[in-house]
Amino acid sequence: MEFHVIIPAGGAGTRLWPLSRASHPKFLVDLLGAGRTLLQSSVDRLRPLADSVTVVTGRAHVEAVGEQLGSDFSRRAAIIEPSPRGTMAAIGLAAGVLEREFGDCLVGSFAADHAIADSVAFHAAVEAAMRAAEAGYIATLGITPDYAATGFGYIRAGEDLADLPAAREVKKFVEKPDAPTAESYLADGGYFWNAGIFIMRAKVLREALERFRPDIAAPLARAVAGWDLDADKQRAEVLQAWEEIPREVIDRAIAEPLAADGGVAVVPASMGWSDIGDFQSLAEHIPAVQRSLQQVDATAPAQPVIAVDSEGALVYTSSKPIAVVGLPDAVVVDAGDVLLVTTRSRAQGVKNVVERLGEVGREDLR
Amino acid sequence: MEFHVIIPAGGAGTRLWPLSRASHPKFLVDLLGAGRTLLQSSVDRLRPLADSVTVVTGRAHVEAVGEQLGSDFSRRAAIIEPSPRGTMAAIGLAAGVLEREFGDCLVGSFAADHAIADSVAFHAAVEAAMRAAEAGYIATLGITPDYAATGFGYIRAGEDLADLPAAREVKKFVEKPDAPTAESYLADGGYFWNAGIFIMRAKVLREALERFRPDIAAPLARAVAGWDLDADKQRAEVLQAWEEIPREVIDRAIAEPLAADGGVAVVPASMGWSDIGDFQSLAEHIPAVQRSLQQVDATAPAQPVIAVDSEGALVYTSSKPIAVVGLPDAVVVDAGDVLLVTTRSRAQGVKNVVERLGEVGREDLR
Repeated sequence: MEFHVIIPAGGAGTRLWPLSRASHPKFLVDLLGAGRTLLQSSVDRLRPLADSVTVVTGRAHVEAVGEQLGSDFSRRAAIIEPSPRGTMAAIGLAAGVLEREFGDCLVGSFAADHAIADSVAFHAAVEAAMRAAEAGYIATLGITPDYAATGFGYIRAGEDLADLPAAREVKKFVEKPDAPTAESYLADGGYFWNAGIFIMRAKVLREALERFRPDIAAPLARAVAGWDLDADKQRAEVLQAWEEIPREVIDRAIAEPLAADGGVAVVPASMGWSDIGDFQSLAEHIPAVQRSLQQVDATAPAQPVIAVDSEGALVYTSSKPIAVVGLPDAVVVDAGDVLLVTTRSRAQGVKNVVERLGEVGREDLR
Repeated sequence: MEFHVIIPAGGAGTRLWPLSRASHPKFLVDLLGAGRTLLQSSVDRLRPLADSVTVVTGRAHVEAVGEQLGSDFSRRAAIIEPSPRGTMAAIGLAAGVLEREFGDCLVGSFAADHAIADSVAFHAAVEAAMRAAEAGYIATLGITPDYAATGFGYIRAGEDLADLPAAREVKKFVEKPDAPTAESYLADGGYFWNAGIFIMRAKVLREALERFRPDIAAPLARAVAGWDLDADKQRAEVLQAWEEIPREVIDRAIAEPLAADGGVAVVPASMGWSDIGDFQSLAEHIPAVQRSLQQVDATAPAQPVIAVDSEGALVYTSSKPIAVVGLPDAVVVDAGDVLLVTTRSRAQGVKNVVERLGEVGREDLR
């Protein structure tokens, strides 16, 4: 079956301010100093497997997405959300339009702003999930946990699925746990992080939605039917249908209820995955040797970093050389128009800066 | 008697890099955000007491000194050292030239780059020292210690001097102590920090030098005799005499031996003095409320500082707003061409940065 990739690209990622901004969210940024933005890397990673890639994004970012993806990207490969209505609406719209164009096919939704270090393991896991999806499952990847994380939801895996190598039945999806529960999940070995990756036949997705969430399925079907891929702006009745779709995430709308029925498969994967949710996880994901070389803007010349007794510091330079003394835990981000100084352990306070900027009338920096 | 002020202005102050540079030392910088550089503030503070102010500086800085002092400053009020030969040579040359011009007078040497918060107390102490100097003493100010500092030399005070209010005999000068010794000095109450301020009759200075250090006195006398205040460059025999002067500091050359003879007076003073030797003392000297407002360059517009859980942070902005999160001890200096991030307690490591810059070929930033 053909495999069509859907990448919902939204979300500001304020915990990574000022690298990630409302006007320039983290998927548009070369956070890892790879020479490619997170979105570009996501597309690069999927291209060998995919028959097409559709990015679902807001009007504010469609131009930047087009610039970054270049010839990989055409008007027809972007779906501009009239307004943000959650991942279920975004993925459901793209899947519906793809089914309309290509008939029943595999669709897979992948984040625009995650990092995956091991592409070979990723490809193997996606291919195993594709087999399960062809067999009628909604298939997901379950990340083998490295530690007792409390920041992710978990997937409880059950028995191996017959004739589907590497795939297991999903017993249930569980919410972000507290620390002792996370420890028990880690010790159990049957729990995996939910990375929000779902692969399924477009028809299976549509039918699950009709079964579990007819309130979503009905307006979504009208939006899909009327959607004009070549139009910059959709017709009034399509916009009206879109606004009627209840906001929901795909996990809750269909994956959780279908799991109770045995209709969801998980492929466990160890592939160096990170959601790069904050500076702590960013620092953990980037190899130490690269940290001082990272740049916010790949077009700016590299600036030297002089680290004295600060070997683990995470330093993004842009406009000038930076010296860090006696702060191995430091996070220093010169974003050109604003500078952030914090530490990994205190970096969650960055969200307060974003609030404060509003209070002092500097929305331009948010 | 007339009172002529001498300000030796040299020394790079690398512990305050990048505010203080070899090319732009700290006396040329508005470190305190006062709207005046340390040199300007030093001259401002002394103007009410002084009949003239002579700055002794190197050729590299004479233009900047002239720009900063403006109409306070003329070619005749600068002495350009042909080469740095220590404070004894610098002060001795200026004092000799002043004596040649004005006859026997009081001369006083003051640092170009110290901070004094209480000008009223300073003026009272200097005037008391001037009385002691008129009476024939070499008079110094002794700073009442706030804590058991190990970074300064101390002055051991003896009996009050008859007919000289506020002045006491100096028993001896002592070197920078170790911590237990510093504690004993603080407990004793009779020890004061040596701030390097000396006030005396020009004749007393000259005669002390002839007595204790004829090897300095002889070439210095030839340099003084031939010194042309109007010349940009001195004649060869004057330059030759200058180079023959042994390098020495005024304390050791005359103050210490004369103290053993009872010829030195000290006026104890509590005047909010700081040598602003490093970021720790800079942060202590600047009132908390001002810290976030400091600027390296008074001509640059003020940039906002957003401090989250970082109330004691010392932040110098220049080119952009700065956010500091979770680092109350932070020292952040955006010097325009380079950025420093450290903490007060680790700031002594800054000198390693200055070394490292040489190794990586960035002498331009030193």
